[in-house]
Amino acid sequence: MKETQKFADRVIDLKASAIREMFKLMAKGDVVALSGGAPAPESFPTEELAEISAKILREQGTVALQYSVTEGYQPLRDMVVERTRTANKLAEYDDTIITTGAQQAIDLAFKALVNDGEGIIVERPSFVGTLNSARSYRAKLFDVPVLDDGMDLDRVEQLLQTENIKLIYTIPTFQNPTGITMSDEKRQRLIDLAVKYDVYIVEDNPYGDLRFAGEPKKNIKSLDPDGRVIYCGTFSKILSPGLRIGWVSAHRDIIERIVVVKQANDVHTPIFNQMMAAEFMKQYDMDEHIARLCKLYGRKCGIMLDALDNYFPEGCTYTRPEGGLFLWCTLPEGTDTKELLTRCIERKVAFVPGNTCMVDIDAPTRYMRLNYSAVAEDKIDWAVKTMSDVIRESL
Amino acid sequence: MKETQKFADRVIDLKASAIREMFKLMAKGDVVALSGGAPAPESFPTEELAEISAKILREQGTVALQYSVTEGYQPLRDMVVERTRTANKLAEYDDTIITTGAQQAIDLAFKALVNDGEGIIVERPSFVGTLNSARSYRAKLFDVPVLDDGMDLDRVEQLLQTENIKLIYTIPTFQNPTGITMSDEKRQRLIDLAVKYDVYIVEDNPYGDLRFAGEPKKNIKSLDPDGRVIYCGTFSKILSPGLRIGWVSAHRDIIERIVVVKQANDVHTPIFNQMMAAEFMKQYDMDEHIARLCKLYGRKCGIMLDALDNYFPEGCTYTRPEGGLFLWCTLPEGTDTKELLTRCIERKVAFVPGNTCMVDIDAPTRYMRLNYSAVAEDKIDWAVKTMSDVIRESL
Repeated sequence: MKETQKFADRVIDLKASAIREMFKLMAKGDVVALSGGAPAPESFPTEELAEISAKILREQGTVALQYSVTEGYQPLRDMVVERTRTANKLAEYDDTIITTGAQQAIDLAFKALVNDGEGIIVERPSFVGTLNSARSYRAKLFDVPVLDDGMDLDRVEQLLQTENIKLIYTIPTFQNPTGITMSDEKRQRLIDLAVKYDVYIVEDNPYGDLRFAGEPKKNIKSLDPDGRVIYCGTFSKILSPGLRIGWVSAHRDIIERIVVVKQANDVHTPIFNQMMAAEFMKQYDMDEHIARLCKLYGRKCGIMLDALDNYFPEGCTYTRPEGGLFLWCTLPEGTDTKELLTRCIERKVAFVPGNTCMVDIDAPTRYMRLNYSAVAEDKIDWAVKTMSDVIRESL
Repeated sequence: MKETQKFADRVIDLKASAIREMFKLMAKGDVVALSGGAPAPESFPTEELAEISAKILREQGTVALQYSVTEGYQPLRDMVVERTRTANKLAEYDDTIITTGAQQAIDLAFKALVNDGEGIIVERPSFVGTLNSARSYRAKLFDVPVLDDGMDLDRVEQLLQTENIKLIYTIPTFQNPTGITMSDEKRQRLIDLAVKYDVYIVEDNPYGDLRFAGEPKKNIKSLDPDGRVIYCGTFSKILSPGLRIGWVSAHRDIIERIVVVKQANDVHTPIFNQMMAAEFMKQYDMDEHIARLCKLYGRKCGIMLDALDNYFPEGCTYTRPEGGLFLWCTLPEGTDTKELLTRCIERKVAFVPGNTCMVDIDAPTRYMRLNYSAVAEDKIDWAVKTMSDVIRESL
């Protein structure tokens, strides 16, 4: 082992995602995990994909198993563009490529755009995978609170005026971890701010299709006047996360740079998996499949909200999402959810403590993220009641 | 589009791989490509994998399609360790994780270890994907010639004495692009140098299993006295590149950092694909499968060498590899293979001009890389003859 300093500065402060570490813990025991970010396993079209996978390997095996181009499987790119053309108002200058999940799209966009020390504005709280990626390129993170109608844009404008900001990262719809959706007014103002202060926006939209209540909002990409919005999408929440297929739509000059870094990163996303997603959309009605998911998640979310209404102590509040996978609880002042978690795990329930979703991950917080998509329906009520008992005891 | 400078400094000088761009060109026409780096499509076990894929999705679909851990599918990790334990003499402190191809293993190792401006020693010529990855972390590249028995270690020691070197990257066995194998003596001296000057070694060994002549050499990892060798392996050349499954074995402290950057990069390598590779090795004899590949590539390489012996003009030399996918030709002084390529493509043959494998990719070179694995056997003689005609005309 080298004797002098071993690691690059960019990774010195990186920590393994507490959520993903917890994942491993969960895998071992009989804990009811409200801590995941996974889709419902019962929603996977396993039989359909079994037939599709065998068919692809028998009929086009030498394509599916061979090297392919970095940009992705052309029929899948076409289908993604077709599905998102209206919602994103894709421009003539936009291009769309396939990535190894939306995580890679975000990571490569940061790599291609952000210099050491340049600023990225994120929501507080935000998606831990994004925070870690930004840290790994030594970006300076600035977080602004998520209000009931999305990120605090007054605070965003202050930062744009005073700091060296390169881009704004947002999950505008059914935000991870809060479940909050940004209003149409704020989406337009965010774009206006980006134009005024000449910064990029990375719009991360893994959950947008999973709406079970309320009215659809405009994608920020659809308001993009001049190719400054980088839109990240994924099949992880609407088909399967295990296949690792996402995409990114952006101005072709940006895509071209992302392709070059992707080449040096993983050459290309597994072509076999891309063909499976394309064939699934060809053979089956994706909209129907998504409609079934929305119904399932709406029901699970409803059960969780009922349980929270019934059991959670006075002084606790929580969001009421119209879609997506998560809701966000605020416990009474003085509570530290990191401590609560240990006691909850002893009682066989897990959640994500809010600090892991913060730029300052070491600060104690009174917040918790609850996931309703991956848990079995008949466990939700018991899990929320058990958590409520632990919270009451701690008050 | 942003008006001020758009891209991060680290990607400004990156260029798309000329080889991969050529790939796209090839895909369109009827060109006989000696330019690829792909395994023989006829070697893919498509029927076996068709059955395996359907079986996995039917029997363990909710595992195969769900999120998984960053380190990889445990049974596959165990199998990889088992297969490489003897050849790599893995130590108690070593750990092995699955990556999205060996390209990702190399890329994440560089990301985790190399600071801006730190030096990486590579072979001249070397693998273009590695050169681009190193550039994308702003490493300073130093190239040393590959001699008949591997890299010039006197030159390596000079660099270690005078430059700020963090690691040495080598493909010691059937090197890409030369096909040359490093001698056992040099492997030991390389380790001794790494210890003396306290630097890491990244041993990239995608082709090591594909030996069709000569005696096996020791993996450099097996000589590693103290956990300074990072070993990158892959299923791309022995099973399928389209599945994108590689691995990295290194000291667990290094692996831990690589896991953290991988989490922020693509979360995990597709679990379904990992299960397919594991199931293939469980159901079939991997050694037999590899033995068939070696036989095939030995035959193809022999046909190519015969054709080179028959047609190539006086003054041209070429390596005679004992395995792997490539051989390397040196044309007479004054030839520029980049120019030759254009004329060859008009005559429907393609190769990789040597400059693309160099640190200074713009300098004209008289070298060319020829691939024999992916081309149909009955096209090799014609392709080499056609190239020879073009070379003769240019002399």
